[in-house]
Amino acid sequence: MKDPVAKTLAGDLGAAAALMRALDDDLPGARAALRAIYPHGGRAFVVGVTGAPGVGKSTLVDALVGAARARGERVAVVAVDPSSPFSGGALLGDRVRMQRHALDDGVFIRSLATRGQQGGLSRSTTATVAVLDAVGFPLVFVETVGAGQAEIDVADATDAVIVVTAPGLGDEVQALKAGLLEIADVLVVNKGDRDGADRAIADLTTMLALAAFPSRPGELQTWGPSEGPQSPPRRTTLGEAQLRPRERRTPPALIRASATAGTGVGDIMAALDALRAAPAAEREARRRRQAVRQITALVGEQARATARAAIGTEDAPGPLAATVNQVAARKLDPWSAAEALTTANR
Amino acid sequence: MKDPVAKTLAGDLGAAAALMRALDDDLPGARAALRAIYPHGGRAFVVGVTGAPGVGKSTLVDALVGAARARGERVAVVAVDPSSPFSGGALLGDRVRMQRHALDDGVFIRSLATRGQQGGLSRSTTATVAVLDAVGFPLVFVETVGAGQAEIDVADATDAVIVVTAPGLGDEVQALKAGLLEIADVLVVNKGDRDGADRAIADLTTMLALAAFPSRPGELQTWGPSEGPQSPPRRTTLGEAQLRPRERRTPPALIRASATAGTGVGDIMAALDALRAAPAAEREARRRRQAVRQITALVGEQARATARAAIGTEDAPGPLAATVNQVAARKLDPWSAAEALTTANR
Repeated sequence: MKDPVAKTLAGDLGAAAALMRALDDDLPGARAALRAIYPHGGRAFVVGVTGAPGVGKSTLVDALVGAARARGERVAVVAVDPSSPFSGGALLGDRVRMQRHALDDGVFIRSLATRGQQGGLSRSTTATVAVLDAVGFPLVFVETVGAGQAEIDVADATDAVIVVTAPGLGDEVQALKAGLLEIADVLVVNKGDRDGADRAIADLTTMLALAAFPSRPGELQTWGPSEGPQSPPRRTTLGEAQLRPRERRTPPALIRASATAGTGVGDIMAALDALRAAPAAEREARRRRQAVRQITALVGEQARATARAAIGTEDAPGPLAATVNQVAARKLDPWSAAEALTTANR
Repeated sequence: MKDPVAKTLAGDLGAAAALMRALDDDLPGARAALRAIYPHGGRAFVVGVTGAPGVGKSTLVDALVGAARARGERVAVVAVDPSSPFSGGALLGDRVRMQRHALDDGVFIRSLATRGQQGGLSRSTTATVAVLDAVGFPLVFVETVGAGQAEIDVADATDAVIVVTAPGLGDEVQALKAGLLEIADVLVVNKGDRDGADRAIADLTTMLALAAFPSRPGELQTWGPSEGPQSPPRRTTLGEAQLRPRERRTPPALIRASATAGTGVGDIMAALDALRAAPAAEREARRRRQAVRQITALVGEQARATARAAIGTEDAPGPLAATVNQVAARKLDPWSAAEALTTANR
């Protein structure tokens, strides 16, 4: 397995691509190779690009790739497709859209299916980024649909996050922004030439002002056997400390752009360059948080896999299949069952 | 803790609501109460409603609630908000939209923030549904944004899944459909009076026909040290068995609706009633799959929590804080670190 490792570290793209595919398929030797290259990484600047469906993330990434290439920088893109978790099939849209870079060997594009793994991006994205870092790409974009778990994962797997929004989407999309806002280092209103862009900029400016001085009170509902459920609930106001807002160095840069027209792209690149020049201590703190998330996610995945193996399948039941049948028949609750399995694993 | 349990099982809504809040806040005694009520459940018909942002899921759920109430059935709604995973804040949009049911005591609506937990819906949604089941709601809708992990979770936490789509959304939204299609028992094209609805119906009919006879070949990339990375990759075609499509009884019902105009809602209710009358063996098999997913997700969550506690915080480092620092400094890879933690936990 030393050959692919040495070749990847020497900048051999073919070897790196083969290693990424091997990792995706979990072929023998692939993980050992990944472990061998990992310590040599950490030089790439990894940028997450996230946002609700339809905001134009792929088009924006395409424009950013063009800007990086225009100044001679090699760049890699990891597109995490919102495709079927069951079939593992990847959709070709992103790659087709980026085909103008297809013949440019300074650009490397890799699509990953999420494959329904719990923990979202954690496994394959982390591994893919580690390989791209090791093979020498100084700049890596990770594009993902920002909804649910993925939006957290992308913040923990990257050095900076661009959150992309666009005017004229439904109110649920607005809701998505609330969660995304907190992970943004750069906040882009794409399709900035459309109706509603002014309003979107104004709304986000307000949201950022509120986020900078968190004052929204939370509610703490007390509950216990001494309190009759008919009596009015006691409520206390949670202070800021209990709301545990994500630590923030500075508010995100708010940039109006139109990826199709090419406006605002230079501003985004400038904002990224500023983040890239952040003090070493700041980057170090972020990488420590990344490490915590990656490690705990991997521990959870391993425990789940162990439990699943102990349960087995209907055709080949494992030692814990009976526990599942008890839960399905409501003779046991899933929480007690999980505790029993956790204890049995120890 | 017997009081809330007995009251919930006797149909006391106030007690059930207090228990749900207690579970959400993880107050002492809440989990024990949940375990005590769980074996008494299993009577509710639980329907997931999922789809991309902007397709009108909340409006559709509102219409379905109205249809259930019109025939005298009590109904509960669990709305899983795509709100901030960091602040735990819930957005009020869904609740405001459903306020016409606010004074109807045959309707119970509960909003859950996802709170960034890995494993998506698993913990709080499962618990909330168990309480609503125990307190006697015969019909429960679980509404969630269908993107990433949530779309799988909803299929494993419910007895039937309505996937909602709408014409005129971007191509990324179309992409989301591919994953959602496979979990649908009922497939609704909402906003069915808009331009593009005919096309959406036609596209979905085609997709369903393809899904019924899976023939899309996957690719298997072989890789190893004996193969030079410059040589053309060997590719073999994966058979259907390896693609492991989700088992399907019958294709989903495809229904054109307009939740705002009220069209198609009766057809959706009829489709749900047909699923509700499914043979006991079919429901049993589904509940067994639910049990496997719930248990393994809980085991994973517990392992993650244990690891996180062992790592500690920067202010109060735990016994494994040094391991994290090694990973952050690239002296150790996260995969080896996770293995060490897993072994240490045993």
